[in-house]
Amino acid sequence: MKKIVNAVDDVLTESLQGFVAAHSDLVVLGRDGKFVRRRDPTPGKVQLLSGGGSGHEPLHAGFVGLGMLDAACPGQVFTSPTPDQMLEAAKTLAPEAGLLLVVKNYEGDVMNFEMAVEMAGDLLGPVATVLTDDDVAVETSTFSTGRRGVAGTLVVEKLVGAAAEEGADLAACQTLGTRVNAATRSMGVALTSCTVPAAGRPTFELGEAEMELGVGIHGEPGRRRVPLMSADAMAEEMIAALLSDYADRPDEVLLLVNGFGATPLMELYLLYKAAADRLTASGVKVARSLVGNYVTSLDMAGASLTITALDEGFARLWDRPVHTAGLRWGC
Amino acid sequence: MKKIVNAVDDVLTESLQGFVAAHSDLVVLGRDGKFVRRRDPTPGKVQLLSGGGSGHEPLHAGFVGLGMLDAACPGQVFTSPTPDQMLEAAKTLAPEAGLLLVVKNYEGDVMNFEMAVEMAGDLLGPVATVLTDDDVAVETSTFSTGRRGVAGTLVVEKLVGAAAEEGADLAACQTLGTRVNAATRSMGVALTSCTVPAAGRPTFELGEAEMELGVGIHGEPGRRRVPLMSADAMAEEMIAALLSDYADRPDEVLLLVNGFGATPLMELYLLYKAAADRLTASGVKVARSLVGNYVTSLDMAGASLTITALDEGFARLWDRPVHTAGLRWGC
Repeated sequence: MKKIVNAVDDVLTESLQGFVAAHSDLVVLGRDGKFVRRRDPTPGKVQLLSGGGSGHEPLHAGFVGLGMLDAACPGQVFTSPTPDQMLEAAKTLAPEAGLLLVVKNYEGDVMNFEMAVEMAGDLLGPVATVLTDDDVAVETSTFSTGRRGVAGTLVVEKLVGAAAEEGADLAACQTLGTRVNAATRSMGVALTSCTVPAAGRPTFELGEAEMELGVGIHGEPGRRRVPLMSADAMAEEMIAALLSDYADRPDEVLLLVNGFGATPLMELYLLYKAAADRLTASGVKVARSLVGNYVTSLDMAGASLTITALDEGFARLWDRPVHTAGLRWGC
Repeated sequence: MKKIVNAVDDVLTESLQGFVAAHSDLVVLGRDGKFVRRRDPTPGKVQLLSGGGSGHEPLHAGFVGLGMLDAACPGQVFTSPTPDQMLEAAKTLAPEAGLLLVVKNYEGDVMNFEMAVEMAGDLLGPVATVLTDDDVAVETSTFSTGRRGVAGTLVVEKLVGAAAEEGADLAACQTLGTRVNAATRSMGVALTSCTVPAAGRPTFELGEAEMELGVGIHGEPGRRRVPLMSADAMAEEMIAALLSDYADRPDEVLLLVNGFGATPLMELYLLYKAAADRLTASGVKVARSLVGNYVTSLDMAGASLTITALDEGFARLWDRPVHTAGLRWGC
């Protein structure tokens, strides 16, 4: 295993400490590193809390800040945070206007967020949840009943975060989040496995000339193991899978090309061109774009494509200011 | 070779097309892809032009925009752009207030930028150059006489770009760039080799338990081949090398932890903590920070540390607005 780490047990703690130190203008670390929250909260708004296993950086802590999340709970690598972490973060947020949980659809995350809500009882006031399950590759998977929540989670967090910042109430934020998730589709491809530090060896084996089409962000199996494809062929297959999953083909989309951690920007932009060309050829306009490493899988080589069917409201919220470690514009 | 590409000969062209399409609000592509320039130039200012081999994305085209570069010429992977490209970019910029070239110290780049200036003759008005050579690892290298220009180039482009945007004249921009370069030191470490698409195999061989300390951004040899170190040991050795290279130890620094392309953010933040701790323990205050993949080496795993000794003027220019694909704040 070749990684820039010290003791394997300290990877999360030290990485979080580095993250918070590098972005001390934006975030503070909760007691015992249980959560990361905004340094300068916007008072009176619906509070957005997310979280999940680490190893997907910048998701979620890198999306804490103005116009996106109010706090995030980082679990150990690829492991759900505990209900205790979530409860402590929620209490610190003091969500008078309501608390919205953004939860990726994995059994551990779903169970632990539910348990945190039960433990909270009436302590927190109103709580609502948005579940993300944008991965069209497979219908159930290693850690999920139903589709997996992957890079589309970023889009949900961005749009709902913008609405909350504008003063939308809890019900409106929940409805919006559910609508954004329903308008969003993702699919990924792995060229190499990731390696979980504590395991010390690749999560799965992949031949020199093979790739995993439809891989999950923890290295879960996808649709099928195939010979290495050209970028154009990858884009064609993935865009076809995404578009065919909509009842009504969208007119305009946001296109997110998301690297899994070990694929350089040069390849991501090349894949962006291939994907945008396929969408255009299919009569779908690419109206907003994002290219980079946003919802990663440790050191996995590969990338995912996400599209969100845009209406005017979604596009406007996408363009609203955001100031986080991982996404920043308009301020 | 596992990469997201189509034909190897089309990697640069397709990646550039994707880049410009994804950032069409910011940049336009010159004829035949010879350069990338700002869509909305600031009139009357000193024009900043840089360039170099591709494979280091987002450097340089990703730093074209308000507060940084006015144009960048991308060469083939790890290959200098041609004088013809530079001349055409310069002519398009119509630099009435003067043209400042930011050139990384590699023989090909230096020679081709010089040739472009000669070819231009009196056509362009005043031209000045800032050479970057921030890599302390080795005194001469495979492609360079004298030290290599690496991630510190970003700092030079950011600070001089801010000054030019404020109306600094050509002589002031050149003096500033030279001062920033002289205040900046970098050193990197490779855990794996990069693979140039046209070569199709790793640039160098590295054992499973080895790393290259002081590696160049094209995979050039560093100081020595050593057994894999902990993050703390890497940081200690690199920070010691950087600090001992200053005649006067700086009081305050900008710390840039730069990924080489295949190292995930989680490890970069962990390395940031290790490096910041070493600086603090050495009595050096980390006053500004940047962590991410900024000056990459294709798919090389590893990272570099860059520090710039800050004075008030440098810190103020760092904080000024920048709006590029790769760096953005304040607007």
